Amino acid sequence: MDEKVLLGHGSGGNMMRRIIDEVFFAGYGNEDLAVGNDAADLPAPQPGERIAYSSDSFVVTPHFFPGGDIGHLAVCGTVNDVATSGAVPKYLSSSFILEEGFPTEDLKRIVDSMRRVAQEAGVEIVTGDTKVVNRGHGDGVYINTSGVGFIPAGRQLGGQYIQPGDRILVSGTLGDHGITIMSCREELSFHADLQSDAAPLNHLIEEVLQAAPETRCFRDPTRGGLASTLNELAEQSQVDMVVEEDAVPVKPAVRGACEMLGYDVLQVANEGKMVAVVPAAQAEAALAAMGSNKYGADAAIIGEVVEADPRRGARVSIRTNFGSLRILDMLVGEQLPRIC
Amino acid sequence: MDEKVLLGHGSGGNMMRRIIDEVFFAGYGNEDLAVGNDAADLPAPQPGERIAYSSDSFVVTPHFFPGGDIGHLAVCGTVNDVATSGAVPKYLSSSFILEEGFPTEDLKRIVDSMRRVAQEAGVEIVTGDTKVVNRGHGDGVYINTSGVGFIPAGRQLGGQYIQPGDRILVSGTLGDHGITIMSCREELSFHADLQSDAAPLNHLIEEVLQAAPETRCFRDPTRGGLASTLNELAEQSQVDMVVEEDAVPVKPAVRGACEMLGYDVLQVANEGKMVAVVPAAQAEAALAAMGSNKYGADAAIIGEVVEADPRRGARVSIRTNFGSLRILDMLVGEQLPRIC
Repeated sequence: MDEKVLLGHGSGGNMMRRIIDEVFFAGYGNEDLAVGNDAADLPAPQPGERIAYSSDSFVVTPHFFPGGDIGHLAVCGTVNDVATSGAVPKYLSSSFILEEGFPTEDLKRIVDSMRRVAQEAGVEIVTGDTKVVNRGHGDGVYINTSGVGFIPAGRQLGGQYIQPGDRILVSGTLGDHGITIMSCREELSFHADLQSDAAPLNHLIEEVLQAAPETRCFRDPTRGGLASTLNELAEQSQVDMVVEEDAVPVKPAVRGACEMLGYDVLQVANEGKMVAVVPAAQAEAALAAMGSNKYGADAAIIGEVVEADPRRGARVSIRTNFGSLRILDMLVGEQLPRIC
Repeated sequence: MDEKVLLGHGSGGNMMRRIIDEVFFAGYGNEDLAVGNDAADLPAPQPGERIAYSSDSFVVTPHFFPGGDIGHLAVCGTVNDVATSGAVPKYLSSSFILEEGFPTEDLKRIVDSMRRVAQEAGVEIVTGDTKVVNRGHGDGVYINTSGVGFIPAGRQLGGQYIQPGDRILVSGTLGDHGITIMSCREELSFHADLQSDAAPLNHLIEEVLQAAPETRCFRDPTRGGLASTLNELAEQSQVDMVVEEDAVPVKPAVRGACEMLGYDVLQVANEGKMVAVVPAAQAEAALAAMGSNKYGADAAIIGEVVEADPRRGARVSIRTNFGSLRILDMLVGEQLPRIC
């Protein structure tokens, strides 16, 4: 195999054939991918089931970081988005935009990492695409994944179903991914063992749904962090939310880094955490289910949904350690570009 | 709306919200997209149907060209890939990688063009993503689309089903897209009315399947052109193919440009043409169906499938105007990067 990616690897001709065979098929090939038609031909869901569908592009820099890499992230991100609907994720697409000169060895590492996490999540990469852009028009590698899942009959989740009285849960500590990327990029070293939380959470979600079948919705607090996620959810259902600052799990190293850099940890990105909104009666069951999953050890109930004042619309507040309430806004502007 | 794309438009916060509302929802919004969850929740196919799934990223330069733009291409390319399986294309995802500084007006034009062609094809854009990369790490806009279609019960198409005796059809003139992009890029002017052929061909495919239900496969000869497409198909079924040079439709302006530039028109990309392989008995019916579609006026039967010599494997040849046979190879290297 060529040592670096060349423009010809995106040509549609024999060089593209070579990179597909030697890198992508060799990495995460399977029967569906190997057929080699323009579209994969796949079994549909059972009668009564529905389709969940999502897509994300990944432009994170650096490509490799403690706890993961851009390929790992690209699989986890889409698996998690699909799973938030209550679906069992089934099929992924994986499309690469490579920059001329990108080392083939790095690409193989990324593809291998995608294979491993796809296997853990139980999804198959069934279709894909390879484009190459000339030097100076990319940043090594960008990856788009899209995902299709099957939603079991009767399951209906979404931010539009939240009701006053519901409890808000997070599946673990916040800010790990954002602060890890930040510290790689700036070559800061906040704490030796700080690492990205990027993880596939579809099994965790399924376990929560078994324990708390009336869960209203899941959402992963990626870009914009918990603050942006809760504001989106509150607006979808036109409710208020109150978060207890004391209850929000944050690693000391992440807290320290945020204080030093002036970041609000609630606006920092996560890639392996799930927010769930659950009726009060099932909140403890949901928490126990999260806590039993390996990615949910630090899960916590962090707040509550209350009625919104109809004169001003949905609002998210946080009760600080000192007992005062302050408004928790969506992220304004951009604090950390290309976090995922 | 801001005049240019800023890093904050990819933040996950309120600026991203604004670009989503004012550009994407305003452009091609619909009920499914408007729900605002992480994954779209969609009706599944009827019992007996299957899922077709495909994904492509688009990095074409320039973004606007005679006959289309990157958005138009991104919808057509994925609609066509999904349709090659015999599926009715239903849902599209659309994910943007924008470069900081890209004019919002251009983005709106692209999104509007996606809306129009998605409507023509009868597909809905139901999910998407927006990332922004810093200046010098993109080229204005890259778009990934993926697509899901439903394959009617009993329909089974693919390059693996081709048999000796089958006829090879193309739906129109070759090379129009590649030579148009080339002439834009180099500011050459081969012919005033030369334009890209980019078009959604799902209706044409459906019409061919009604007329010639035993069609073996469709494939769109994009990157690498007809030559690469036929070599892929021949290899999938381990057959030989013989193309009649005289029968291949090529516009005079395209032929002239290829002669001047030293290109083989059979290796030049098309974005609105379909190759079909059809049993001999249904070839005329397939041709008539193509010819009745507005995108198939210049359709032609261009060759025939024959048995391969088992000692050397699949081979594609062309019978030249002088009556001699020459081997038609896949594209080697790269003649025209970023054609789609």
